[in-house]
Amino acid sequence: MAERPTGHEVPTGDEGGAAPSTRLGGSPPPEPSHAERCRTLVASASRGALATLAADPQGYPYGSVASYGLDDRGNPLLFVSLMAEHTQNAIRDARASLLVTEPVPDGADPLASGRATLLGLLSTVAEDDRPAARDRYLEANPASAYYIDFGDFTFYRLGVQSIRYVGGYGRMSWVDAAAYAEAEPDPLAAAAAGIIEHMNADHAESQVLFCRHLVERPDTTEAIMSAVDRYGFDMIAVGPAGRAAVRLGFPDECTTGEQVRQAMIALVADARAAAARARR
Amino acid sequence: MAERPTGHEVPTGDEGGAAPSTRLGGSPPPEPSHAERCRTLVASASRGALATLAADPQGYPYGSVASYGLDDRGNPLLFVSLMAEHTQNAIRDARASLLVTEPVPDGADPLASGRATLLGLLSTVAEDDRPAARDRYLEANPASAYYIDFGDFTFYRLGVQSIRYVGGYGRMSWVDAAAYAEAEPDPLAAAAAGIIEHMNADHAESQVLFCRHLVERPDTTEAIMSAVDRYGFDMIAVGPAGRAAVRLGFPDECTTGEQVRQAMIALVADARAAAARARR
Repeated sequence: MAERPTGHEVPTGDEGGAAPSTRLGGSPPPEPSHAERCRTLVASASRGALATLAADPQGYPYGSVASYGLDDRGNPLLFVSLMAEHTQNAIRDARASLLVTEPVPDGADPLASGRATLLGLLSTVAEDDRPAARDRYLEANPASAYYIDFGDFTFYRLGVQSIRYVGGYGRMSWVDAAAYAEAEPDPLAAAAAGIIEHMNADHAESQVLFCRHLVERPDTTEAIMSAVDRYGFDMIAVGPAGRAAVRLGFPDECTTGEQVRQAMIALVADARAAAARARR
Repeated sequence: MAERPTGHEVPTGDEGGAAPSTRLGGSPPPEPSHAERCRTLVASASRGALATLAADPQGYPYGSVASYGLDDRGNPLLFVSLMAEHTQNAIRDARASLLVTEPVPDGADPLASGRATLLGLLSTVAEDDRPAARDRYLEANPASAYYIDFGDFTFYRLGVQSIRYVGGYGRMSWVDAAAYAEAEPDPLAAAAAGIIEHMNADHAESQVLFCRHLVERPDTTEAIMSAVDRYGFDMIAVGPAGRAAVRLGFPDECTTGEQVRQAMIALVADARAAAARARR
Protein backbone atom coordinates (compact mmCIF):
# COMPACT_ATOMS: atom_id res chain seq x y z
CA MET A 1 0.00 0.00 0.00
CA ALA A 2 1.47 3.35 -1.01
CA GLU A 3 1.65 6.37 1.27
CA ARG A 4 -1.66 8.17 1.07
CA PRO A 5 -2.36 11.83 1.68
CA THR A 6 -4.07 12.34 4.98
CA GLY A 7 -5.64 14.97 7.18
CA HIS A 8 -4.02 16.17 10.36
CA GLU A 9 -5.52 15.31 13.72
CA VAL A 10 -5.22 18.71 15.35
CA PRO A 11 -3.95 21.96 13.93
CA THR A 12 -0.16 22.06 14.05
CA GLY A 13 1.15 24.21 16.87
CA ASP A 14 4.37 26.16 16.90
CA GLU A 15 6.10 23.16 18.45
CA GLY A 16 4.74 20.65 15.96
CA GLY A 17 7.10 18.30 14.21
CA ALA A 18 5.88 19.20 10.75
CA ALA A 19 7.87 22.29 9.89
CA PRO A 20 11.53 21.97 10.83
CA SER A 21 13.66 24.97 10.05
CA THR A 22 16.09 24.71 7.20
CA ARG A 23 19.75 25.33 7.81
CA LEU A 24 20.71 28.85 6.75
CA GLY A 25 21.79 28.83 3.13
CA GLY A 26 21.37 25.08 2.78
CA SER A 27 18.87 22.43 1.89
CA PRO A 28 16.34 21.14 4.43
CA PRO A 29 18.07 19.14 7.17
CA PRO A 30 17.99 15.37 6.62
CA GLU A 31 15.63 13.45 8.87
CA PRO A 32 14.44 9.86 9.28
CA SER A 33 11.70 8.76 6.89
CA HIS A 34 8.39 7.79 8.47
CA ALA A 35 9.27 4.17 7.68
CA GLU A 36 12.48 4.55 9.70
CA ARG A 37 10.64 6.35 12.50
CA CYS A 38 8.13 3.48 12.66
CA ARG A 39 10.84 0.81 12.76
CA THR A 40 12.60 2.71 15.53
CA LEU A 41 9.40 3.20 17.53
CA VAL A 42 8.26 -0.42 17.20
CA ALA A 43 11.77 -1.73 18.02
CA SER A 44 11.97 0.44 21.15
CA ALA A 45 8.99 -1.26 22.81
CA SER A 46 7.96 -4.83 23.52
CA ARG A 47 4.27 -4.46 24.32
CA GLY A 48 1.34 -3.12 22.35
CA ALA A 49 -2.40 -3.21 21.93
CA LEU A 50 -3.40 -6.06 19.65
CA ALA A 51 -6.72 -5.63 17.85
CA THR A 52 -8.51 -8.72 16.54
CA LEU A 53 -12.09 -9.42 15.49
CA ALA A 54 -14.39 -10.77 18.21
CA ALA A 55 -16.85 -13.64 17.84
CA ASP A 56 -19.28 -12.22 20.39
CA PRO A 57 -20.29 -9.50 19.88
CA GLN A 58 -19.64 -10.64 16.34
CA GLY A 59 -17.14 -8.72 14.23
CA TYR A 60 -16.41 -6.10 16.89
CA PRO A 61 -12.78 -5.02 17.01
CA TYR A 62 -11.31 -6.43 20.22
CA GLY A 63 -8.31 -4.83 21.92
CA SER A 64 -5.99 -6.81 24.18
CA VAL A 65 -2.49 -6.53 25.59
CA ALA A 66 0.27 -8.31 23.66
CA SER A 67 3.99 -8.57 24.23
CA TYR A 68 6.12 -9.01 21.14
CA GLY A 69 9.54 -9.44 19.63
CA LEU A 70 10.37 -8.59 16.00
CA ASP A 71 11.64 -10.59 13.06
CA ASP A 72 14.26 -9.18 10.66
CA ARG A 73 11.63 -7.31 8.66
CA GLY A 74 9.91 -5.76 11.65
CA ASN A 75 6.97 -8.19 11.76
CA PRO A 76 5.77 -8.64 15.36
CA LEU A 77 6.21 -12.12 16.85
CA LEU A 78 3.55 -12.81 19.48
CA PHE A 79 3.52 -15.59 22.05
CA VAL A 80 -0.08 -16.34 22.90
CA SER A 81 -2.16 -18.81 24.85
CA LEU A 82 -4.47 -20.95 22.74
CA MET A 83 -7.19 -20.21 25.29
CA ALA A 84 -6.85 -16.44 25.11
CA GLU A 85 -9.62 -14.47 23.41
CA HIS A 86 -7.28 -12.84 20.88
CA THR A 87 -5.92 -16.23 19.80
CA GLN A 88 -9.41 -17.64 19.33
CA ASN A 89 -10.27 -14.50 17.38
CA ALA A 90 -7.19 -14.89 15.17
CA ILE A 91 -8.03 -18.53 14.44
CA ARG A 92 -11.45 -17.44 13.14
CA ASP A 93 -10.26 -14.32 11.29
CA ALA A 94 -6.58 -13.49 10.75
CA ARG A 95 -7.08 -9.72 10.29
CA ALA A 96 -5.39 -7.79 13.08
CA SER A 97 -3.38 -4.75 14.05
CA LEU A 98 -0.81 -3.93 16.68
CA LEU A 99 -0.69 -0.43 18.13
CA VAL A 100 2.65 0.59 19.63
CA THR A 101 3.01 3.88 21.45
CA GLU A 102 5.94 5.88 22.75
CA PRO A 103 5.89 6.36 26.50
CA VAL A 104 4.06 9.56 27.45
CA PRO A 105 5.86 11.64 30.11
CA ASP A 106 3.73 12.42 33.18
CA GLY A 107 1.46 15.37 32.53
CA ALA A 108 2.37 15.55 28.84
CA ASP A 109 -0.19 15.64 26.06
CA PRO A 110 -0.50 12.01 24.87
CA LEU A 111 -1.41 13.15 21.36
CA ALA A 112 2.05 14.73 21.00
CA SER A 113 3.77 11.34 21.38
CA GLY A 114 4.47 8.92 18.58
CA ARG A 115 2.47 5.81 17.78
CA ALA A 116 2.28 3.29 14.97
CA THR A 117 -0.50 0.92 13.97
CA LEU A 118 0.74 -2.13 12.10
CA LEU A 119 -2.10 -3.78 10.17
CA GLY A 120 -1.78 -7.27 8.78
CA LEU A 121 -2.64 -10.94 9.03
CA LEU A 122 -1.82 -13.19 11.98
CA SER A 123 -0.43 -16.62 11.22
CA THR A 124 1.25 -19.31 13.28
CA VAL A 125 5.03 -19.41 13.05
CA ALA A 126 6.19 -22.45 11.08
CA GLU A 127 7.98 -25.09 13.15
CA ASP A 128 11.37 -24.38 11.52
CA ASP A 129 11.13 -20.71 12.44
CA ARG A 130 10.07 -21.27 16.04
CA PRO A 131 13.53 -21.37 17.64
CA ALA A 132 14.39 -18.01 16.04
CA ALA A 133 11.01 -16.57 17.04
CA ARG A 134 11.52 -17.82 20.59
CA ASP A 135 14.94 -16.13 20.76
CA ARG A 136 13.61 -12.84 19.43
CA TYR A 137 10.63 -12.91 21.77
CA LEU A 138 12.73 -13.73 24.84
CA GLU A 139 15.27 -11.04 24.01
CA ALA A 140 12.46 -8.47 24.00
CA ASN A 141 10.60 -10.01 26.96
CA PRO A 142 13.04 -11.55 29.43
CA ALA A 143 10.32 -11.72 32.12
CA SER A 144 8.45 -14.30 30.05
CA ALA A 145 11.23 -16.88 30.40
CA TYR A 146 9.30 -18.71 33.11
CA TYR A 147 6.40 -19.65 30.84
CA ILE A 148 8.06 -19.65 27.40
CA ASP A 149 7.95 -23.44 27.25
CA PHE A 150 4.36 -24.01 28.44
CA GLY A 151 2.59 -26.25 25.98
CA ASP A 152 -0.55 -24.13 25.89
CA PHE A 153 1.29 -21.24 24.21
CA THR A 154 2.23 -20.77 20.60
CA PHE A 155 3.98 -18.22 18.39
CA TYR A 156 2.13 -16.04 15.91
CA ARG A 157 3.56 -13.60 13.41
CA LEU A 158 1.73 -10.45 12.37
CA GLY A 159 2.60 -10.13 8.67
CA VAL A 160 2.52 -6.36 8.27
CA GLN A 161 0.63 -5.13 5.20
CA SER A 162 0.09 -1.49 5.98
CA ILE A 163 1.15 1.01 8.65
CA ARG A 164 -0.39 4.14 10.03
CA TYR A 165 2.21 6.37 11.64
CA VAL A 166 1.49 9.37 13.84
CA GLY A 167 4.62 11.06 15.17
CA GLY A 168 2.77 13.82 16.97
CA TYR A 169 0.85 16.84 15.75
CA GLY A 170 1.26 17.34 12.03
CA ARG A 171 3.62 14.40 11.44
CA MET A 172 1.58 11.48 10.18
CA SER A 173 1.16 9.29 7.13
CA TRP A 174 0.38 5.82 5.83
CA VAL A 175 3.76 4.12 5.53
CA ASP A 176 4.52 1.64 2.80
CA ALA A 177 4.95 -1.85 4.27
CA ALA A 178 7.98 -2.68 2.09
CA ALA A 179 9.72 0.55 3.11
CA TYR A 180 9.04 -0.32 6.76
CA ALA A 181 10.39 -3.86 6.30
CA GLU A 182 13.61 -2.54 4.73
CA ALA A 183 14.14 0.36 7.14
CA GLU A 184 16.62 0.13 9.98
CA PRO A 185 15.78 1.16 13.55
CA ASP A 186 17.76 4.27 14.45
CA PRO A 187 21.15 3.17 15.85
CA LEU A 188 21.06 6.09 18.31
CA ALA A 189 17.67 5.13 19.78
CA ALA A 190 19.05 3.57 22.95
CA ALA A 191 21.52 6.44 23.50
CA ALA A 192 19.12 9.28 22.63
CA ALA A 193 17.73 9.98 26.11
CA GLY A 194 21.25 10.22 27.57
CA ILE A 195 22.46 12.50 24.77
CA ILE A 196 19.46 14.82 25.20
CA GLU A 197 19.93 15.01 28.96
CA HIS A 198 23.65 15.71 28.61
CA MET A 199 23.22 18.36 25.91
CA ASN A 200 20.49 20.22 27.81
CA ALA A 201 22.38 20.06 31.10
CA ASP A 202 25.89 20.89 29.91
CA HIS A 203 25.71 22.43 26.44
CA ALA A 204 22.73 24.77 26.54
CA GLU A 205 24.87 27.67 25.30
CA SER A 206 26.08 25.71 22.26
CA GLN A 207 22.47 25.00 21.39
CA VAL A 208 21.60 28.71 21.57
CA LEU A 209 24.56 29.33 19.25
CA PHE A 210 23.21 26.70 16.81
CA CYS A 211 19.76 28.33 16.77
CA ARG A 212 21.15 31.84 16.35
CA HIS A 213 23.73 31.15 13.67
CA LEU A 214 22.95 27.87 11.92
CA VAL A 215 19.17 28.02 11.63
CA GLU A 216 16.88 30.98 11.11
CA ARG A 217 16.41 31.96 14.76
CA PRO A 218 18.78 34.88 15.45
CA ASP A 219 16.74 36.02 18.48
CA THR A 220 17.02 32.73 20.37
CA THR A 221 17.57 33.14 24.11
CA GLU A 222 17.15 29.50 25.14
CA ALA A 223 17.33 26.22 23.22
CA ILE A 224 16.23 22.78 24.41
CA MET A 225 17.06 19.58 22.56
CA SER A 226 13.91 17.48 22.16
CA ALA A 227 15.03 14.61 19.91
CA VAL A 228 18.13 13.17 18.29
CA ASP A 229 18.59 10.57 15.56
CA ARG A 230 21.33 9.41 13.20
CA TYR A 231 20.68 12.32 10.81
CA GLY A 232 20.45 15.23 13.24
CA PHE A 233 18.51 16.67 16.12
CA ASP A 234 15.46 18.76 17.01
CA MET A 235 15.44 21.72 19.37
CA ILE A 236 12.82 24.03 20.79
CA ALA A 237 14.16 27.53 20.21
CA VAL A 238 12.78 30.07 22.69
CA GLY A 239 12.87 33.77 21.86
CA PRO A 240 10.89 37.01 22.14
CA ALA A 241 8.41 35.75 19.52
CA GLY A 242 7.73 32.52 21.38
CA ARG A 243 8.83 28.92 20.91
CA ALA A 244 9.61 27.21 17.64
CA ALA A 245 10.71 23.73 16.60
CA VAL A 246 13.99 23.74 14.69
CA ARG A 247 16.09 20.95 13.28
CA LEU A 248 19.77 20.76 12.52
CA GLY A 249 21.42 18.00 10.49
CA PHE A 250 24.72 16.38 11.42
CA PRO A 251 27.56 16.93 8.91
CA ASP A 252 27.68 13.12 8.57
CA GLU A 253 25.38 10.37 9.84
CA CYS A 254 26.09 9.40 13.44
CA THR A 255 25.60 5.85 14.65
CA THR A 256 27.31 6.16 18.06
CA GLY A 257 27.35 8.65 20.91
CA GLU A 258 31.03 9.36 20.21
CA GLN A 259 30.20 10.32 16.61
CA VAL A 260 27.51 12.67 17.95
CA ARG A 261 30.09 14.28 20.23
CA GLN A 262 32.44 14.86 17.26
CA ALA A 263 29.56 16.24 15.17
CA MET A 264 28.62 18.68 17.93
CA ILE A 265 32.22 19.95 18.09
CA ALA A 266 32.15 20.54 14.32
CA LEU A 267 28.80 22.34 14.54
CA VAL A 268 30.04 24.62 17.32
CA ALA A 269 32.97 25.57 15.09
CA ASP A 270 30.55 26.22 12.20
CA ALA A 271 28.32 28.35 14.42
CA ARG A 272 31.25 30.41 15.71
CA ALA A 273 32.50 30.96 12.17
CA ALA A 274 29.01 32.07 11.09
CA ALA A 275 28.82 34.44 14.08
CA ALA A 276 32.22 35.94 13.15
CA ARG A 277 31.07 36.44 9.55
CA ALA A 278 27.89 38.12 10.78
CA ARG A 279 29.90 40.62 12.87
CA ARG A 280 32.04 41.70 9.92
CA MET B 1 -24.35 -10.26 27.78
CA ALA B 2 -24.04 -12.59 30.77
CA GLU B 3 -20.72 -13.59 32.33
CA ARG B 4 -19.37 -16.52 30.37
CA PRO B 5 -17.03 -19.23 31.52
CA THR B 6 -13.56 -18.74 30.16
CA GLY B 7 -10.12 -20.29 29.93
CA HIS B 8 -7.16 -18.91 31.77
CA GLU B 9 -4.29 -17.34 29.87
CA VAL B 10 -1.43 -18.96 31.75
CA PRO B 11 -1.48 -21.50 34.55
CA THR B 12 -2.13 -19.81 37.88
CA GLY B 13 1.02 -19.41 39.92
CA ASP B 14 1.23 -19.34 43.67
CA GLU B 15 0.91 -15.58 43.61
CA GLY B 16 -2.11 -15.55 41.31
CA GLY B 17 -5.18 -13.56 42.25
CA ALA B 18 -7.50 -16.52 41.88
CA ALA B 19 -7.28 -18.29 45.21
CA PRO B 20 -7.33 -15.92 48.17
CA SER B 21 -7.12 -17.58 51.54
CA THR B 22 -10.20 -17.66 53.70
CA ARG B 23 -10.09 -16.15 57.15
CA LEU B 24 -9.60 -18.83 59.77
CA GLY B 25 -12.96 -20.12 60.94
CA GLY B 26 -14.89 -17.71 58.68
CA SER B 27 -16.35 -17.35 55.23
CA PRO B 28 -14.24 -16.27 52.24
CA PRO B 29 -13.14 -12.64 52.59
CA PRO B 30 -15.31 -10.16 50.69
CA GLU B 31 -13.75 -8.70 47.57
CA PRO B 32 -14.78 -6.40 44.73
CA SER B 33 -16.80 -8.01 41.94
CA HIS B 34 -15.22 -8.01 38.51
CA ALA B 35 -17.73 -5.33 37.53
CA GLU B 36 -16.44 -3.14 40.37
CA ARG B 37 -12.82 -3.93 39.50
CA CYS B 38 -13.48 -2.87 35.89
CA ARG B 39 -15.16 0.40 36.91
CA THR B 40 -12.23 1.15 39.22
CA LEU B 41 -9.63 0.32 36.57
CA VAL B 42 -11.34 2.33 33.82
CA ALA B 43 -11.94 5.30 36.15
CA SER B 44 -8.30 5.34 37.22
CA ALA B 45 -7.02 6.07 33.70
CA SER B 46 -7.83 8.58 30.99
CA ARG B 47 -6.22 7.03 27.93
CA GLY B 48 -6.72 3.72 26.17
CA ALA B 49 -6.38 1.88 22.91
CA LEU B 50 -9.43 2.40 20.75
CA ALA B 51 -10.13 -0.32 18.19
CA THR B 52 -12.32 0.49 15.19
CA LEU B 53 -12.83 -1.13 11.79
CA ALA B 54 -10.61 0.16 8.98
CA ALA B 55 -11.75 0.98 5.46
CA ASP B 56 -8.40 0.08 3.91
CA PRO B 57 -7.39 -2.65 4.40
CA GLN B 58 -11.12 -3.26 4.63
CA GLY B 59 -12.59 -4.60 7.85
CA TYR B 60 -9.23 -4.87 9.62
CA PRO B 61 -9.36 -3.94 13.29
CA TYR B 62 -7.51 -0.64 13.68
CA GLY B 63 -5.92 0.39 16.98
CA SER B 64 -5.35 4.03 17.88
CA VAL B 65 -4.70 6.11 20.97
CA ALA B 66 -7.73 7.73 22.59
CA SER B 67 -8.12 9.90 25.65
CA TYR B 68 -11.43 9.66 27.46
CA GLY B 69 -13.63 10.79 30.30
CA LEU B 70 -16.55 8.74 31.65
CA ASP B 71 -20.27 9.33 31.94
CA ASP B 72 -22.24 8.29 35.04
CA ARG B 73 -22.60 4.73 33.80
CA GLY B 74 -18.93 4.28 32.92
CA ASN B 75 -19.35 4.79 29.17
CA PRO B 76 -16.20 6.36 27.68
CA LEU B 77 -16.58 9.86 26.25
CA LEU B 78 -14.08 10.48 23.46
CA PHE B 79 -13.12 13.79 21.89
CA VAL B 80 -12.01 13.12 18.35
CA SER B 81 -11.01 14.98 15.22
CA LEU B 82 -13.36 14.46 12.29
CA MET B 83 -10.26 13.96 10.14
CA ALA B 84 -8.77 11.21 12.32
CA GLU B 85 -8.78 7.66 10.98
CA HIS B 86 -10.69 6.26 13.96
CA THR B 87 -13.46 8.85 13.52
CA GLN B 88 -13.79 8.07 9.83
CA ASN B 89 -13.87 4.39 10.75
CA ALA B 90 -16.59 4.97 13.36
CA ILE B 91 -18.72 6.92 10.88
CA ARG B 92 -18.67 3.92 8.53
CA ASP B 93 -19.08 1.24 11.21
CA ALA B 94 -19.90 2.03 14.85
CA ARG B 95 -18.48 -1.20 16.28
CA ALA B 96 -15.52 -0.48 18.55
CA SER B 97 -13.71 -1.32 21.75
CA LEU B 98 -11.57 0.55 24.23
CA LEU B 99 -8.74 -1.28 25.99
CA VAL B 100 -7.67 0.23 29.30
CA THR B 101 -4.63 -1.14 31.13
CA GLU B 102 -3.20 -0.65 34.58
CA PRO B 103 0.27 0.83 34.57
CA VAL B 104 2.93 -1.91 34.53
CA PRO B 105 5.80 -1.30 36.97
CA ASP B 106 9.27 -1.33 35.37
CA GLY B 107 10.49 -4.87 34.87
CA ALA B 108 7.19 -6.42 35.96
CA ASP B 109 5.35 -9.02 33.94
CA PRO B 110 2.73 -7.07 31.94
CA LEU B 111 0.40 -10.07 31.93
CA ALA B 112 0.10 -9.82 35.73
CA SER B 113 -1.46 -6.34 35.51
CA GLY B 114 -5.15 -5.62 35.08
CA ARG B 115 -6.83 -4.63 31.84
CA ALA B 116 -10.39 -4.25 30.59
CA THR B 117 -11.76 -4.26 27.06
CA LEU B 118 -15.04 -2.36 26.73
CA LEU B 119 -16.88 -3.39 23.56
CA GLY B 120 -19.75 -1.36 22.20
CA LEU B 121 -21.03 1.09 19.61
CA LEU B 122 -19.66 4.59 19.05
CA SER B 123 -22.17 7.39 18.59
CA THR B 124 -21.96 11.17 18.60
CA VAL B 125 -22.97 12.84 21.84
CA ALA B 126 -26.30 14.63 21.45
CA GLU B 127 -26.11 18.43 21.58
CA ASP B 128 -27.87 18.64 24.96
CA ASP B 129 -25.34 16.28 26.52
CA ARG B 130 -22.27 17.99 25.10
CA PRO B 131 -21.62 20.44 27.96
CA ALA B 132 -21.65 17.55 30.47
CA ALA B 133 -19.44 15.43 28.20
CA ARG B 134 -17.04 18.36 27.82
CA ASP B 135 -16.81 18.76 31.61
CA ARG B 136 -16.18 15.06 32.17
CA TYR B 137 -13.60 14.91 29.42
CA LEU B 138 -11.72 17.99 30.64
CA GLU B 139 -11.74 16.75 34.22
CA ALA B 140 -9.99 13.57 33.06
CA ASN B 141 -7.75 15.34 30.50
CA PRO B 142 -6.81 18.81 31.72
CA ALA B 143 -4.01 19.03 29.12
CA SER B 144 -6.61 19.04 26.35
CA ALA B 145 -8.06 22.39 27.46
CA TYR B 146 -6.18 24.23 24.71
CA TYR B 147 -7.97 22.46 21.88
CA ILE B 148 -11.28 21.51 23.50
CA ASP B 149 -13.13 24.20 21.54
CA PHE B 150 -11.61 23.58 18.10
CA GLY B 151 -14.40 23.23 15.57
CA ASP B 152 -12.90 20.16 13.93
CA PHE B 153 -13.39 18.03 17.05
CA THR B 154 -16.49 16.33 18.31
CA PHE B 155 -17.59 14.12 21.21
CA TYR B 156 -18.37 10.45 20.81
CA ARG B 157 -19.72 8.05 23.42
CA LEU B 158 -18.80 4.38 23.46
CA GLY B 159 -22.05 2.71 24.58
CA VAL B 160 -20.66 -0.31 26.41
CA GLN B 161 -22.37 -3.60 25.55
CA SER B 162 -19.92 -6.17 26.84
CA ILE B 163 -16.69 -6.21 28.84
CA ARG B 164 -13.75 -8.53 28.97
CA TYR B 165 -11.87 -8.21 32.24
CA VAL B 166 -8.44 -9.66 32.99
CA GLY B 167 -7.18 -8.82 36.46
CA GLY B 168 -3.96 -10.83 36.13
CA TYR B 169 -3.28 -14.53 36.06
CA GLY B 170 -6.36 -16.57 36.84
CA ARG B 171 -8.68 -13.61 37.46
CA MET B 172 -10.69 -12.99 34.33
CA SER B 173 -14.24 -13.07 33.06
CA TRP B 174 -16.78 -11.51 30.74
CA VAL B 175 -18.50 -8.85 32.84
CA ASP B 176 -22.16 -8.03 32.45
CA ALA B 177 -22.55 -4.52 30.99
CA ALA B 178 -25.43 -3.60 33.34
CA ALA B 179 -23.43 -4.69 36.39
CA TYR B 180 -20.54 -2.55 35.15
CA ALA B 181 -22.82 0.44 34.59
CA GLU B 182 -24.21 0.16 38.12
CA ALA B 183 -20.92 -0.55 39.88
CA GLU B 184 -19.05 2.15 41.75
CA PRO B 185 -15.31 2.78 41.34
CA ASP B 186 -13.52 1.81 44.54
CA PRO B 187 -13.47 4.85 46.84
CA LEU B 188 -10.00 3.86 48.08
CA ALA B 189 -8.48 3.76 44.59
CA ALA B 190 -6.70 7.10 44.84
CA ALA B 191 -5.42 6.37 48.35
CA ALA B 192 -4.39 2.75 47.75
CA ALA B 193 -0.77 3.32 46.68
CA GLY B 194 -0.11 5.46 49.75
CA ILE B 195 -1.75 2.94 52.10
CA ILE B 196 0.28 0.08 50.64
CA GLU B 197 3.53 2.03 50.91
CA HIS B 198 2.79 3.01 54.51
CA MET B 199 1.76 -0.48 55.59
CA ASN B 200 4.81 -2.15 54.04
CA ALA B 201 7.20 0.47 55.42
CA ASP B 202 5.82 0.85 58.94
CA HIS B 203 3.56 -2.11 59.74
CA ALA B 204 5.31 -5.14 58.31
CA GLU B 205 5.11 -6.92 61.69
CA SER B 206 1.36 -6.41 61.93
CA GLN B 207 0.99 -7.96 58.50
CA VAL B 208 3.00 -11.02 59.57
CA LEU B 209 0.67 -11.26 62.58
CA PHE B 210 -2.36 -11.14 60.25
CA CYS B 211 -0.97 -13.95 58.09
CA ARG B 212 -0.02 -16.11 61.06
CA HIS B 213 -3.19 -15.74 63.11
CA LEU B 214 -6.03 -14.52 60.90
CA VAL B 215 -5.44 -16.51 57.70
CA GLU B 216 -4.13 -20.00 57.24
CA ARG B 217 -0.41 -19.14 57.09
CA PRO B 218 1.04 -19.86 60.57
CA ASP B 219 4.61 -20.16 59.18
CA THR B 220 4.70 -16.68 57.67
CA THR B 221 8.02 -14.89 58.15
CA GLU B 222 7.36 -11.88 55.91
CA ALA B 223 4.16 -10.33 54.55
CA ILE B 224 3.88 -7.69 51.83
CA MET B 225 0.64 -5.85 51.06
CA SER B 226 -0.02 -5.93 47.32
CA ALA B 227 -3.52 -4.41 47.00
CA VAL B 228 -6.20 -2.72 49.07
CA ASP B 229 -9.83 -1.92 48.33
CA ARG B 230 -12.98 -0.98 50.27
CA TYR B 231 -13.58 -4.61 51.28
CA GLY B 232 -10.11 -5.67 52.41
CA PHE B 233 -6.57 -6.22 51.24
CA ASP B 234 -4.24 -8.72 49.59
CA MET B 235 -0.85 -9.76 50.90
CA ILE B 236 1.98 -11.94 49.68
CA ALA B 237 2.78 -14.23 52.64
CA VAL B 238 6.36 -15.51 52.55
CA GLY B 239 7.29 -18.62 54.52
CA PRO B 240 9.40 -21.79 54.38
CA ALA B 241 7.06 -23.28 51.76
CA GLY B 242 7.37 -20.25 49.46
CA ARG B 243 5.11 -17.34 48.66
CA ALA B 244 1.32 -17.33 48.68
CA ALA B 245 -1.36 -14.77 47.96
CA VAL B 246 -3.68 -14.23 50.91
CA ARG B 247 -6.60 -11.89 51.43
CA LEU B 248 -8.08 -10.44 54.58
CA GLY B 249 -11.43 -8.65 54.76
CA PHE B 250 -12.03 -5.48 56.75
CA PRO B 251 -14.52 -5.84 59.63
CA ASP B 252 -16.58 -3.13 57.86
CA GLU B 253 -16.26 -1.53 54.43
CA CYS B 254 -13.73 1.30 54.37
CA THR B 255 -14.20 4.30 52.12
CA THR B 256 -11.44 6.50 53.55
CA GLY B 257 -7.84 6.10 54.66
CA GLU B 258 -8.87 6.91 58.24
CA GLN B 259 -11.38 4.05 58.21
CA VAL B 260 -8.61 1.75 56.95
CA ARG B 261 -6.43 2.87 59.87
CA GLN B 262 -9.21 2.03 62.35
CA ALA B 263 -9.81 -1.32 60.66
CA MET B 264 -6.11 -2.18 60.91
CA ILE B 265 -6.13 -1.39 64.63
CA ALA B 266 -9.12 -3.72 65.07
CA LEU B 267 -7.42 -6.46 63.04
CA VAL B 268 -4.22 -6.20 65.08
CA ALA B 269 -6.32 -6.68 68.25
CA ASP B 270 -8.05 -9.69 66.64
CA ALA B 271 -4.70 -11.20 65.63
CA ARG B 272 -3.24 -10.72 69.12
CA ALA B 273 -6.32 -12.31 70.70
CA ALA B 274 -6.04 -15.25 68.29
CA ALA B 275 -2.34 -15.61 69.12
CA ALA B 276 -3.13 -15.62 72.87
CA ARG B 277 -5.81 -18.31 72.36
CA ALA B 278 -3.34 -20.39 70.37
CA ARG B 279 -0.80 -20.26 73.22
CA ARG B 280 -3.31 -21.56 75.83
